Amino acid sequence: MQNRPDTYVLAADVGGTNTRMAVVSGDGEIHALLKKPTRCKEGKEAMLQFLLSFMREIIRKSELPCEEIAGAGVGFPGPLDAETGIIFNPPNLTGWDGIPLRRILEDELKMPVSIENDANAAALGEWWKGAGAGTNSFICITLGTGVGGGIILDGRLWYGASGMAGEIGHTTIIRNGIKCTCGNSGCLEAYASARGIIDRVQNVLSERGDKRGIRECLTLERISSMASQGNEMIGSIIRETGIILGIAVANIANLLNPEMVALFGGVTNLGETLFKPMREEVKKRAFEKATEPLKIEVAKLGDNSGILGAAKSILLRISDSERA
Amino acid sequence: MQNRPDTYVLAADVGGTNTRMAVVSGDGEIHALLKKPTRCKEGKEAMLQFLLSFMREIIRKSELPCEEIAGAGVGFPGPLDAETGIIFNPPNLTGWDGIPLRRILEDELKMPVSIENDANAAALGEWWKGAGAGTNSFICITLGTGVGGGIILDGRLWYGASGMAGEIGHTTIIRNGIKCTCGNSGCLEAYASARGIIDRVQNVLSERGDKRGIRECLTLERISSMASQGNEMIGSIIRETGIILGIAVANIANLLNPEMVALFGGVTNLGETLFKPMREEVKKRAFEKATEPLKIEVAKLGDNSGILGAAKSILLRISDSERA
Repeated sequence: MQNRPDTYVLAADVGGTNTRMAVVSGDGEIHALLKKPTRCKEGKEAMLQFLLSFMREIIRKSELPCEEIAGAGVGFPGPLDAETGIIFNPPNLTGWDGIPLRRILEDELKMPVSIENDANAAALGEWWKGAGAGTNSFICITLGTGVGGGIILDGRLWYGASGMAGEIGHTTIIRNGIKCTCGNSGCLEAYASARGIIDRVQNVLSERGDKRGIRECLTLERISSMASQGNEMIGSIIRETGIILGIAVANIANLLNPEMVALFGGVTNLGETLFKPMREEVKKRAFEKATEPLKIEVAKLGDNSGILGAAKSILLRISDSERA
Repeated sequence: MQNRPDTYVLAADVGGTNTRMAVVSGDGEIHALLKKPTRCKEGKEAMLQFLLSFMREIIRKSELPCEEIAGAGVGFPGPLDAETGIIFNPPNLTGWDGIPLRRILEDELKMPVSIENDANAAALGEWWKGAGAGTNSFICITLGTGVGGGIILDGRLWYGASGMAGEIGHTTIIRNGIKCTCGNSGCLEAYASARGIIDRVQNVLSERGDKRGIRECLTLERISSMASQGNEMIGSIIRETGIILGIAVANIANLLNPEMVALFGGVTNLGETLFKPMREEVKKRAFEKATEPLKIEVAKLGDNSGILGAAKSILLRISDSERA
């Protein structure tokens, strides 16, 4: 399963705001990394041309002959079908529903292409070169604007029957809990996403008639600094978030018994105020024999997890086809 | 992965009350099936001798020469380590902690042996020859005295990092819910096990000063018949149980996106009063794209799931070693 260090692939991490691309070697060295704003507002065709010309620019920048690039891996906003590489209806990208991105890129680039949804790409990157390196079973929970996840079992992404596996953010933690953007109520995301935390702080401030917390100014950074200055109301909301996150992690421990759960994204900056009650709740709720092998870590790769995961995705595909 | 029909294995389903044994062919035909009370109260040594002499009896009864039996599969009360075949501390069997059952049986029987915990064996049987036949990802939830589970992904049991995977019964559904036997509160098992349902009915009857419901007489059958006679209190407890089960299934759908969830055990006899609210809750809480491929079924094999799962366990081991 190990790719040779002298295999090189193109890797792209396409986000709603920025796109990062690089050439990555078989042992995970990143070369010729560039970041550009994703031209997603100009429509599908312009964005596709942007991606292709950005890819060609990176290949040029790497100074490798095109035929030495063994393939291209792309992390793209989901939902999408990783097997066929067809994009479904990503919330922030219009005109992409049903687009066979993998086939289009393979035709243009004349190399094998692999498409992963962004949460899975980040999980794969963290598992390959980050916190999860060396583990066999690894669950990544992304605590960002929303809450996403990726599941790696036996060293492979688990996609599920229709590519939907890993929606940890939309498991119910509080039966009659607050409304989630997905339509359900009491989802992990409704509490442990940046939006969920900011909204709850905002609500308490509004109830108190406190005008300092108007929504535009309320950021995670501001919330974090208010907590560290001893704001008890905010501290209690963060601790409550930690407990809810702990229930989710305990459920994963009892259900899947993984070696590692890695936490990723801006919300992890809340640090021990969040993590301490989370760990206590996991200990309280999960079987000791399931928590014994379980490491709970913060992801290590930052912005590079998506790029490295996209690279690993195509490297795995290449080594699979070489073996077959 | 297919075993030849003319491969035969010994299969044992060792329960706390009864042990069932048979010879099973590579295509799942059951021969020479016998059931006996498990001699578990007489201590470990007597029980081991009981198992061995029962096994030899089944081989004789099958009229196959011993060398034609390719191996033995055993479903045994967990927790245990399926890889090493070592038993941990099963709640109802004293003296078994640390016993290397697989090695002992291999030495005595002179054939390869495979040990699975009983919930996993039942799941494997249902996946091989029951409701889950033909599926690639299959989750079995056993609603019995307790609530257990088995997870099959990519046609293999998922054990987890320390063999604890599948403890669906001990995922938290109700944060501040009723106390579970595991020490946690709000577990699925505290509500959806036979014990959980009987206790809750009992509590309401006691609160009402109703003496008809004294614990000794309250069985699932009695509860079921009271519900079908229109007892509204009991109907509402069963519907509530269905909702809680539905939350658990929705969480599994969003997390693992399996092809099938199969329900197993005495509680399933509550029928549509339980299943209707369960299905509605799944629909309400899980992503449509995750529920589209999801079939929720009642297990089909009844008492034979454990025997067939034990057989499949050793058949898989044999075909793996032939391939290696």
